Amino acid sequence: MKNKLRLGLPKGSLQDATIEKMAKAGFNVQVSSRSYVPYVDDEELEIRLIRAQEISRYVEHGYLDAGITGHDWIVENGSKVHEVAEYIFSKISRQPTRWVLAVPEESKIKSVKDLEGKRIATEVVNLTKRWLKKNGVKAEVEFSWGATEVKAHELVDAIVEVTETGSSLRANKLRIVETLLTSTPRLVANVDSWKEKWKRQKIETLDLLLRGAMEAASKVGLKMNIRQDNLPKLLQSLPALRNPTVSTLSQPGWIAVEVIIDEHVVREIIPLFKSAGAEGIIEYPLNKVVY
Amino acid sequence: MKNKLRLGLPKGSLQDATIEKMAKAGFNVQVSSRSYVPYVDDEELEIRLIRAQEISRYVEHGYLDAGITGHDWIVENGSKVHEVAEYIFSKISRQPTRWVLAVPEESKIKSVKDLEGKRIATEVVNLTKRWLKKNGVKAEVEFSWGATEVKAHELVDAIVEVTETGSSLRANKLRIVETLLTSTPRLVANVDSWKEKWKRQKIETLDLLLRGAMEAASKVGLKMNIRQDNLPKLLQSLPALRNPTVSTLSQPGWIAVEVIIDEHVVREIIPLFKSAGAEGIIEYPLNKVVY
Amino acid sequence: MKNKLRLGLPKGSLQDATIEKMAKAGFNVQVSSRSYVPYVDDEELEIRLIRAQEISRYVEHGYLDAGITGHDWIVENGSKVHEVAEYIFSKISRQPTRWVLAVPEESKIKSVKDLEGKRIATEVVNLTKRWLKKNGVKAEVEFSWGATEVKAHELVDAIVEVTETGSSLRANKLRIVETLLTSTPRLVANVDSWKEKWKRQKIETLDLLLRGAMEAASKVGLKMNIRQDNLPKLLQSLPALRNPTVSTLSQPGWIAVEVIIDEHVVREIIPLFKSAGAEGIIEYPLNKVVY
Amino acid sequence: MKNKLRLGLPKGSLQDATIEKMAKAGFNVQVSSRSYVPYVDDEELEIRLIRAQEISRYVEHGYLDAGITGHDWIVENGSKVHEVAEYIFSKISRQPTRWVLAVPEESKIKSVKDLEGKRIATEVVNLTKRWLKKNGVKAEVEFSWGATEVKAHELVDAIVEVTETGSSLRANKLRIVETLLTSTPRLVANVDSWKEKWKRQKIETLDLLLRGAMEAASKVGLKMNIRQDNLPKLLQSLPALRNPTVSTLSQPGWIAVEVIIDEHVVREIIPLFKSAGAEGIIEYPLNKVVY
Amino acid sequence: MKNKLRLGLPKGSLQDATIEKMAKAGFNVQVSSRSYVPYVDDEELEIRLIRAQEISRYVEHGYLDAGITGHDWIVENGSKVHEVAEYIFSKISRQPTRWVLAVPEESKIKSVKDLEGKRIATEVVNLTKRWLKKNGVKAEVEFSWGATEVKAHELVDAIVEVTETGSSLRANKLRIVETLLTSTPRLVANVDSWKEKWKRQKIETLDLLLRGAMEAASKVGLKMNIRQDNLPKLLQSLPALRNPTVSTLSQPGWIAVEVIIDEHVVREIIPLFKSAGAEGIIEYPLNKVVY
Amino acid sequence: MKNKLRLGLPKGSLQDATIEKMAKAGFNVQVSSRSYVPYVDDEELEIRLIRAQEISRYVEHGYLDAGITGHDWIVENGSKVHEVAEYIFSKISRQPTRWVLAVPEESKIKSVKDLEGKRIATEVVNLTKRWLKKNGVKAEVEFSWGATEVKAHELVDAIVEVTETGSSLRANKLRIVETLLTSTPRLVANVDSWKEKWKRQKIETLDLLLRGAMEAASKVGLKMNIRQDNLPKLLQSLPALRNPTVSTLSQPGWIAVEVIIDEHVVREIIPLFKSAGAEGIIEYPLNKVVY
Repeated sequence: MKNKLRLGLPKGSLQDATIEKMAKAGFNVQVSSRSYVPYVDDEELEIRLIRAQEISRYVEHGYLDAGITGHDWIVENGSKVHEVAEYIFSKISRQPTRWVLAVPEESKIKSVKDLEGKRIATEVVNLTKRWLKKNGVKAEVEFSWGATEVKAHELVDAIVEVTETGSSLRANKLRIVETLLTSTPRLVANVDSWKEKWKRQKIETLDLLLRGAMEAASKVGLKMNIRQDNLPKLLQSLPALRNPTVSTLSQPGWIAVEVIIDEHVVREIIPLFKSAGAEGIIEYPLNKVVY
Repeated sequence: MKNKLRLGLPKGSLQDATIEKMAKAGFNVQVSSRSYVPYVDDEELEIRLIRAQEISRYVEHGYLDAGITGHDWIVENGSKVHEVAEYIFSKISRQPTRWVLAVPEESKIKSVKDLEGKRIATEVVNLTKRWLKKNGVKAEVEFSWGATEVKAHELVDAIVEVTETGSSLRANKLRIVETLLTSTPRLVANVDSWKEKWKRQKIETLDLLLRGAMEAASKVGLKMNIRQDNLPKLLQSLPALRNPTVSTLSQPGWIAVEVIIDEHVVREIIPLFKSAGAEGIIEYPLNKVVY
Repeated sequence: MKNKLRLGLPKGSLQDATIEKMAKAGFNVQVSSRSYVPYVDDEELEIRLIRAQEISRYVEHGYLDAGITGHDWIVENGSKVHEVAEYIFSKISRQPTRWVLAVPEESKIKSVKDLEGKRIATEVVNLTKRWLKKNGVKAEVEFSWGATEVKAHELVDAIVEVTETGSSLRANKLRIVETLLTSTPRLVANVDSWKEKWKRQKIETLDLLLRGAMEAASKVGLKMNIRQDNLPKLLQSLPALRNPTVSTLSQPGWIAVEVIIDEHVVREIIPLFKSAGAEGIIEYPLNKVVY
Repeated sequence: MKNKLRLGLPKGSLQDATIEKMAKAGFNVQVSSRSYVPYVDDEELEIRLIRAQEISRYVEHGYLDAGITGHDWIVENGSKVHEVAEYIFSKISRQPTRWVLAVPEESKIKSVKDLEGKRIATEVVNLTKRWLKKNGVKAEVEFSWGATEVKAHELVDAIVEVTETGSSLRANKLRIVETLLTSTPRLVANVDSWKEKWKRQKIETLDLLLRGAMEAASKVGLKMNIRQDNLPKLLQSLPALRNPTVSTLSQPGWIAVEVIIDEHVVREIIPLFKSAGAEGIIEYPLNKVVY
Repeated sequence: MKNKLRLGLPKGSLQDATIEKMAKAGFNVQVSSRSYVPYVDDEELEIRLIRAQEISRYVEHGYLDAGITGHDWIVENGSKVHEVAEYIFSKISRQPTRWVLAVPEESKIKSVKDLEGKRIATEVVNLTKRWLKKNGVKAEVEFSWGATEVKAHELVDAIVEVTETGSSLRANKLRIVETLLTSTPRLVANVDSWKEKWKRQKIETLDLLLRGAMEAASKVGLKMNIRQDNLPKLLQSLPALRNPTVSTLSQPGWIAVEVIIDEHVVREIIPLFKSAGAEGIIEYPLNKVVY
Repeated sequence: MKNKLRLGLPKGSLQDATIEKMAKAGFNVQVSSRSYVPYVDDEELEIRLIRAQEISRYVEHGYLDAGITGHDWIVENGSKVHEVAEYIFSKISRQPTRWVLAVPEESKIKSVKDLEGKRIATEVVNLTKRWLKKNGVKAEVEFSWGATEVKAHELVDAIVEVTETGSSLRANKLRIVETLLTSTPRLVANVDSWKEKWKRQKIETLDLLLRGAMEAASKVGLKMNIRQDNLPKLLQSLPALRNPTVSTLSQPGWIAVEVIIDEHVVREIIPLFKSAGAEGIIEYPLNKVVY
């Protein structure tokens, strides 16, 4: 019988980003509406689409060999799983998401201590209760089914809510008091699956390719011609250039230099290259980068 | 200061239907996206849009004077509220929604007794636990964040899920084992608000108009001319005709008959009217019917 | 066993209009995508959604007891069916659709005679051939899979195409030469089904209600109060008023007059009513009108 | 030759509302995209879709016999036209639109006098200049191609912009200083066309039907049965009831009462009817109301 | 006069895929809605958008010099055309489409022989008749206007329908009995056009570029650095690597290796490269690959 | 304090194209709806979205340091600004846009001279007046609020309208008489800003990167292997090849050639490469090309 790895991917807000990352890694996942078993063009993989909140629970129980989910939900569920890798998905801020305590701008609550005897609405009830306990504070925590932000103004005293840039909280005239947890996407494995050689190798290859695709998303290739004499000056003035590929050209005294760099520094580096004597500079897109 | 009644309406799947009912009752509610405080063209009302799951909790606490929500969530929350009226919203089946125990078609589970030692996923954890206890069965109940139906096939042994016609369950190859609860929308009031004369009257008027609008949705007016001689025959052959309005016409010997009837019997009753001698039969739409 | 009537409705361009007419007649048809067996809320009916081109063929063969389709396709197919009724669906022009011979604006073809030896593209090959034969003209007729209009400019010499207002032909710079056939929707029955008493009655009731709904679509109710003295003058000046319902009012000397009239004459008749002394004129919508 | 009235309707933001009003008045206007000559089902009318800003200009010049446009643009263009009627279209606020002078919230400009030497951006240059002159203020007025609101914060000192509820201005953190002009839709006629008998009659009928349709939009019909004894009490307690139609029923001692009332008072009046002894109250929709 | 090649492209389901392939080949085709003469940025080409069913007919007649269409319709039409090339468009299955005989799952028809005396619906009447004749079977074949699949259950005994993966047939509870024809897209030329030198060269260039673009769609470029010593090992362990480009680097002892490979093997080959000592592996996208 | 450059980008029809060019240049601009201050991921830039018609006016006034706008509006406004660069955005025709005098096809107006005493509608009143004056013609010029094309048929005698390919004018049955102005997008700077060293350098870098991105949009990379012997022949037969990068391969006697060329010549050049002995030709996409 063929070896199979059962992998959980997050349904909902992270779904499209995750499936796009999988595609860039070389695994085409096709979701038919309503199905939680999408097609993947790898016979060794079986995908399950499950809410991010629940994935770690089913990885722990062994229904799934591995899964991609947020660190926050692993903590909220208290799941015992092997963490394989940490990724950064968000293109907007390149910052992790945060679960924060938020209150109305004009509230008197200034720190966790001021929550004594108050009522808090949140989707992460366990995480919030543990944090209150750690701080020696007693407060009522109630589960919020969503739209948590609007409740902070009259239904409860404070909320614990997820945010990336804080802009949605500000738009709701809420003030962040403290951060309970920062969270990033993780690749996690069931403890027993991780001990099986074939499954572990499959998970590690998956991780290698995912990381290669994510690296590539923010990088580009630059290629240029330059006189051999100018190379030392170029490299000296740009010490950050990681390991350029230098190849000889048939035109005597000229070489070709090729580097892989972060896309967002290109606009600063191209003028520098030019003043160092580079010619015929081209920038091209990348699919994967594996060091 | 002006009297105000604070009314909770369900956000989400019931939202559009509820707002349409309110409009037909004469209260125009305008929801701007992201806001949970919609505009309503009645200065005596203040609307809050809140998840159906949470409304009864906030009516009980007194944040809301009244609310429209499902019987199921009142029971799940165990909220102590005054129930004013029961409505039927669904146009599809005219049946209440039901929370049922469902298992894969081929499962060996045939009754609640077979759940002993099993694991059940559901959005109504309390309701399910209480029902298991009443039946003397011990089983693990876990909260499901959604897409509960697909879990029944491999992640858990059974689910407790809401259904109207059962078609979604059948499409997921699930079999209904038992019904835990049937549920309809309810207008509920905070116990103290119900004791205040002005608030109670406002709630009762709201109920009167809502019921009038719902009655009208499934009814039409029929009007026809008939010879006076034929009237007894007409009424005799149609004993179900509730209280027709009979008015005299200026043409001697002829009268006009007007009835309000269920839309779905029109296609049977018009041929009968014709054979009883009715002429110039017209059918017209209604906005409200208040007996 | 329950009696059943199997009814074919046209899939495609006439589909929505037909289903809307059925709904106004009191039969709610619900089409799930890809299905050709829609749900209908009448246990005595079974609906089939079939291309208008094919319905008459299957009514003739007895697969369907009855069907609604265009006269054009009955003729094209040469189907032997019992024609129950003719309807007018189109709201735009209130004119029947026409199959016309069309040529480029600058073509030398001026009449059917000029087609001798030419090539014609059309979706109605039989109808076109029969028409050519009747006119003693020999020409090649080829079946067109669609987008017939664009072919007239270089691929063929002429086309036979369906049109309502001719605007699409004009937009393609085509000129109408002659009309081959005018067509309206028809309710047709299988010859044998029409002989069975129950089926015939069911078809006749269907027809009664469909006509009632279509009548109502172009009509409105008008109601007004007028002094009894003015009534003769009103009726005299408006001889076209069909059978008004005149009822006595409690205010001595005043009567209420109610008429059902074509919507498109309202704009002419209201000024006349006013000058005849009518007061409090209201216009209201109708669902059905059955004489 | 047939008489023809050429009527201009406003293209753009008022277009849909105007065409809907025309339809309710009994004139079906069908706009094909890109065309400015829409079809209308009245051979005596010829419609032109023209920007509201330009209609009065073309009515004045005689290209159009009549047109519907805003009072603001008639004033801005200084057009000499005959004003036939004033309408209220807006369903949101039932208030006329206003052209206001607006400045950033923190601006020092508090009245028209503070504009001396400042720069103002607006779409209504003439109107603004005339208003400044009337107030004895000298300021630069520049024409704005749109998105005027965002300019007030740094490109100019103040703007003159149109608003209905002021919410868009507030959202842009602008403060209203003064109102230059309030505006409603008007039906205007060319001065010569108005003198021709046929054209004037046609315009007057159009106005009668438009007003009838607009009246109906905010009204409903109510019908109920009541014991004759209770009628005086009913009428007494509801002195605002305009001229009810009272008809005799065949059931001795009972009468039918029918009234046309504003939709927004229904919710208050139905409970009153009930307590006055009314039975079988129904509310039905209206197309037109012409007194 | 400029040389011109008139090329037919398939309108309808293949249209977008074909135009995308043309774009990748370097020919930008812009379709304005309703037009069948799209713009192309090559003055030597004239494009016509024609239904796939009809293209071969017009290539045969000489209206078109060449066209892209399915093998199935060439056969159905019995067109005499020169076949230039066969392509594979489908990304889903990489399998050709098939025309199959399909019957209801429970039908007794098990082979072509069982069709004797039956009725078959299909869009490919000629192809079906020829196939029946070849098998010595007599059956009635009728032309189907579409939605053929739903007819198999009661209107006819069997259908001949096109399928790629068979999933749509299975969803309609149909069973495939036999395959009549497999079909792929073809580039075909008019026999006379093919004899003209300029036209033939133009068609051959078009074919060269189309094939180059299709090759590229499923391939990527991989580039890496490796110690010269490790190259033999790398090539030995990966004998399938076609002709890598190996270039010398200025860093002594190191070389750059560049290969073009199928995208779907990348996920297996990158780990192998790494274990063979490759560094700085990058994957980049391709527009065209021409061997 | 950080240096800041305030840059105006055109709102409206050029907006998406401009923002895409900015992104390719390495500046990610994010427009939230209704805002005219979009986010850009460069702290040294501040973007304003302003109608193209107005940008030059605000650059001249100094509200903006620089802006991208059309040459036509710079002329229409008569703005005194420093022109930094001229770009070509349009992918369709690679031709500049033109402002032309257009009249109905059947008009007697054949040249500017025939406009004497006529009325012209246009969005560029100044430009038109200046052009008339230069030609010694007196005519009335009126500002058009849009939909200018439809006016030419009955409201005015001629229009001055913008066009790229003329197809929209032809579709409106208009004939182009003369061209008043051709226009391309320009990067313009405020005269004082251009004198400040930091601002000027920032603008020049922006220009460098924008030109690099635009160059790349119409170019691709081609790479191939060839026997060293064949290189002279290849280069000789393709003298237009700009500066190919020739690198040595490890396979003796073979070299790799890489060129950057216009995408639209690829379809002609690949066959030539092949016949010159090139193998393994690949084409790949580019992000930027800076010489």
